[in-house]
Amino acid sequence: MKVQGFKAAGIAAELRYKDKLDLGVIVSETEAVAAGVYTKNLVKAAPVLWSREITASGRARAILVNSGQANACTGPDGPADAADSARVVAESLGCSPDEVLLASTGVIGERINMEALTRAVPVLKETLGDENLAQVAKAMMTTDTRVKILEAGGRLDDAPFRMVGMAKGSGMIAPNMATMLCFILTDAAVSPGYLQKLLARGAERSFNRITIDGDTSTNDCVLVLANGLAGNPPMENSQSPGAAEFERILFSMMKDLAKLLVQDGEGATKTVRVAVFGASDGEQAKLAAMTVANSPLVKTALFGQDANWGRLMMALGRSGAIFDPDRVGISLDNVPLVRAGQAAKKDNPEADHVMRLREYTINIDLGVGTGQAEILTSDFSFDYVKINADYRS
Amino acid sequence: MKVQGFKAAGIAAELRYKDKLDLGVIVSETEAVAAGVYTKNLVKAAPVLWSREITASGRARAILVNSGQANACTGPDGPADAADSARVVAESLGCSPDEVLLASTGVIGERINMEALTRAVPVLKETLGDENLAQVAKAMMTTDTRVKILEAGGRLDDAPFRMVGMAKGSGMIAPNMATMLCFILTDAAVSPGYLQKLLARGAERSFNRITIDGDTSTNDCVLVLANGLAGNPPMENSQSPGAAEFERILFSMMKDLAKLLVQDGEGATKTVRVAVFGASDGEQAKLAAMTVANSPLVKTALFGQDANWGRLMMALGRSGAIFDPDRVGISLDNVPLVRAGQAAKKDNPEADHVMRLREYTINIDLGVGTGQAEILTSDFSFDYVKINADYRS
Repeated sequence: MKVQGFKAAGIAAELRYKDKLDLGVIVSETEAVAAGVYTKNLVKAAPVLWSREITASGRARAILVNSGQANACTGPDGPADAADSARVVAESLGCSPDEVLLASTGVIGERINMEALTRAVPVLKETLGDENLAQVAKAMMTTDTRVKILEAGGRLDDAPFRMVGMAKGSGMIAPNMATMLCFILTDAAVSPGYLQKLLARGAERSFNRITIDGDTSTNDCVLVLANGLAGNPPMENSQSPGAAEFERILFSMMKDLAKLLVQDGEGATKTVRVAVFGASDGEQAKLAAMTVANSPLVKTALFGQDANWGRLMMALGRSGAIFDPDRVGISLDNVPLVRAGQAAKKDNPEADHVMRLREYTINIDLGVGTGQAEILTSDFSFDYVKINADYRS
Repeated sequence: MKVQGFKAAGIAAELRYKDKLDLGVIVSETEAVAAGVYTKNLVKAAPVLWSREITASGRARAILVNSGQANACTGPDGPADAADSARVVAESLGCSPDEVLLASTGVIGERINMEALTRAVPVLKETLGDENLAQVAKAMMTTDTRVKILEAGGRLDDAPFRMVGMAKGSGMIAPNMATMLCFILTDAAVSPGYLQKLLARGAERSFNRITIDGDTSTNDCVLVLANGLAGNPPMENSQSPGAAEFERILFSMMKDLAKLLVQDGEGATKTVRVAVFGASDGEQAKLAAMTVANSPLVKTALFGQDANWGRLMMALGRSGAIFDPDRVGISLDNVPLVRAGQAAKKDNPEADHVMRLREYTINIDLGVGTGQAEILTSDFSFDYVKINADYRS
């Protein structure tokens, strides 16, 4: 899995744990166009603030990512450690610190282990290779149980191009953000402004439409590097040759990565699409879908495989969306569950059957207008509690 | 535990389960002043709509409560069953149906078992007694593990008066409502308008400041009956003789009942007060406190007894409240945990000690202004998931 012009390496730097890859670097051999979207949490980690400045310039050469320490809520040491990390990488690679994007994930309130990092970066540089992208995807895992990396490709105005995306995230995943960490690399030629616009639009349709626990991290970021080596005529906007194809492939990759996050949600046993339609507008539909997707009572019912539709009605009713309860229709995949606000039938073995699937869709028709929205969610299981009662200690 | 002029009875009517009290009635021998606050969920149960009409008139004679079926999302059958229930009670007691308040709790989408109810009401009537209030408190329990009933008393302008309050609720408990079911009985003499005003104000300070799971029920209601037999000069407003004393005792009872609900929260092992101060105003403080109190990651950390303050900062940051992260101070009871947005100290055994208590306070100073708010919450435990994955089936 590779993209021409990009090299990578991962290492067990012992920032926090032993024998786990915890530091990774991705390097673009040429200057790459860069774009980023970041957490909207008011409390932002130092690497988020650092990278935001760089993607605003539209150019970068490298991404350094660590797991173990979030470098959030670390006071003035946070930005200093971030600047030092970028300097160490820049010196090793022979570029400028303001071309080095940073991303961290781990325990909030803990400083980066700078000694271990400084020792590890030269080793990382020696082991850079164009087949090592999965090492980075591994190095950023925390409570994740699966490596999340995907590839895609196509033609842009006849020039073949490649794209690789990787993501991490399993808890503290909620909407209104660019989720945990995600890096997308491509050899497509695209202008910084257009890439940033595409990224923001794509995040709104993918990462901002999933929830695992309703909690938005301090460290979320999605970064895209595009080095232009595919040789296509540089895309400046959605009318440029190849732009439609590029959008389609980029958005599809972001949606697929977002789904991988939900599938690997902490303790998750289900991946459920909450599709609301018939709302007065898209915002109302999103509000209704998100409230259902975040409701602890709904999420425990998903885990319990109980078609307890009263909890869906309860969540819709408290969402703030406006509708007439007596006109609501709900189905599980294609099995009617609620008609006109009441049970579609007394016993519903078909609905029980859908609830036992690993993946399915809850279709909700509010019966008001044409607004619609979809949110991808997971369930609340014993393991969700176990993981989060135990994590850190 | 009794209040002059009130009689009660509870019975195992087998509405849904065998051998569990599930139907209760409270009767006022004289016409009582009545007030009520109800769920703000858009989806409202039939008994909520029924009782709301009656408390608007300011007078009632009886409360009938059942557990097992919520009579919510039952279509046109819902109001019909409610009217029939009130009629059956009225005929038995010799009053008018529009003097009979109704409250239901149980599975949403299921009709009241009218046959069982109709059979049981005459038996209830035969067993009415002035020492039976606790039977009603038992009859309305579902996942509750403890009977929640309290008494109080005092003097109103020299006339001694009594008050008994009871509540049920263990899940689907969240703010912006008058929680699950709560009945308060008093022999104080008070005007309907003043009583309704007091009840609304008291609910805002008690039931609307607790959360167990962030989910607001379709059936919540708090009802107050005041029969005036204490003989005090009827209170018309907060300047009336005795009004200050009455307010104090009523509000204190509502707060105590609200706390009993949190203590008996589904699977709860902790009762934690989240006290935010230093916010720009009271609304911002409530927003911040409620977001912390509802965060799944905070609630699992409470269960895990882990002083993982990064999750508190994360929740504050995503709450929408405006503050400077570098000025936040947090303490557990009196033990400093966060100073100027960073760890107050590296190792903090005193903080770990507080986290092992059954009850404690998380004090959060946003460092902006003078706004403050307190929310009472519980933790997310294995049993929370177990109860809600299993309930109903």
